[in-house]
Amino acid sequence: MVLVSPRNPLNIGAVARAMANFGFSRLSVVSPYEPHWREARSAVGAPQLLANAQQTTSLADALRDCTLVLGTGTLTHRKAEQPVVRLDELAPLVEREFHGGGQIAVVFGPEKHGLTREDLSYCHVLVEIPTDVHQPSMNLGQAAAVCLYELATRIGLSTAGSGTAEDRINRDTPVTETEHPRNASEAAPTSANLDILAGLIEEAMVAAKYSPQMMQQANQHDLRLMLRRLHLNAADNRRALGLFRRILTRLRIPQS
Amino acid sequence: MVLVSPRNPLNIGAVARAMANFGFSRLSVVSPYEPHWREARSAVGAPQLLANAQQTTSLADALRDCTLVLGTGTLTHRKAEQPVVRLDELAPLVEREFHGGGQIAVVFGPEKHGLTREDLSYCHVLVEIPTDVHQPSMNLGQAAAVCLYELATRIGLSTAGSGTAEDRINRDTPVTETEHPRNASEAAPTSANLDILAGLIEEAMVAAKYSPQMMQQANQHDLRLMLRRLHLNAADNRRALGLFRRILTRLRIPQS
Repeated sequence: MVLVSPRNPLNIGAVARAMANFGFSRLSVVSPYEPHWREARSAVGAPQLLANAQQTTSLADALRDCTLVLGTGTLTHRKAEQPVVRLDELAPLVEREFHGGGQIAVVFGPEKHGLTREDLSYCHVLVEIPTDVHQPSMNLGQAAAVCLYELATRIGLSTAGSGTAEDRINRDTPVTETEHPRNASEAAPTSANLDILAGLIEEAMVAAKYSPQMMQQANQHDLRLMLRRLHLNAADNRRALGLFRRILTRLRIPQS
Repeated sequence: MVLVSPRNPLNIGAVARAMANFGFSRLSVVSPYEPHWREARSAVGAPQLLANAQQTTSLADALRDCTLVLGTGTLTHRKAEQPVVRLDELAPLVEREFHGGGQIAVVFGPEKHGLTREDLSYCHVLVEIPTDVHQPSMNLGQAAAVCLYELATRIGLSTAGSGTAEDRINRDTPVTETEHPRNASEAAPTSANLDILAGLIEEAMVAAKYSPQMMQQANQHDLRLMLRRLHLNAADNRRALGLFRRILTRLRIPQS
């Protein structure tokens, strides 16, 4: 469970309580408002997982080890740039990832406006809680409780004692045996792996003068989304890294 | 949705918000702590359903029209006196009742200790949210959100725009056609109907000197539970009323 810039200490406490209720223990908090974060952690009866929570300054850092990132939020004011899955239809997707040994994160944005477009570009899937059109916006603690209930009850994530799995991944997308020698013991690229690949591709874009300077930020964004949409396996990732390293080396040779 | 003696205005507000989120509108509150109840109702942004909430002094009154009453709570410190159903396995039971036109209520107790043994004697079923053994006790607003999510998503209760249905009941317990002429347009006895029957049976017990004075309260309790366990249909209820009225008349004829 990852909370991005939570404000209200009561909400932070409520999220932690719901995690304890449903047997989850790993919480990360991205750039929280410090006084409220301290207050939430030191509250009477606060679950131990708050004290153990990881604190990072960027969402990318919080997601480093994750292979499936589930963003949350309403779609009232925007169009999703990644697949949208209803919470009650999430089970098959998450189950496959979990049993394949992937690490799964559920990300919640700040109370006021939710996850930004940039935050969402780190997510493979946007999870939608099916709420009433007249009152779609849920309280953070309640939205977390509903998501964790679904993950614990219908998918059995919490039986592992943690919201994320530590095993290996084993995707069931069809691959040609000779082209992509699959290795079941090889994990899918994590969020951090994908960020390294994205960095290389960006460097190649710049080196190749692929796009004007002013387009670089938009390209970064689209690249992040695309790499998550592709569901690369470990071999794909290794090849892409090798290819772009080679391209970069070539591009940097002074042309005579 | 019925709240028995809620204390914390934030929790009352959270329950109301979750109801609005999942499309439920009928809230009853039993003997709330008045200052906090006023505070919750007048809170900024409080959903309209709080202003429309029904207020009663007894749980029996709040449940008058209901044909299926779902109690909530943990079983840590007690043994249930009625069937216990996990929230995620509740769908078939509630769906049958709902589509048969029954009126369904979900009852939550006060934050501190939950529903009392007497409160629970008005419930047909005790609903258990499958929580971690180390931290079973949920926050009221979060427990309500999880229950309403399940009822709205898996059972589709809220699509009717209300947590209760106004139609007719149609039970599928087997009955002999000649013995119990079933009438699909006839509703199952409501909680108030069962209380009337229980009252008559108690009178008969007293009139027949069935049990000593000191046992009367225990008998009342057991009778309430039993009548809910039996799932009487309308014809059963009519017959039982007729029978006990006759018995009472006979018992009251001075024996010469």
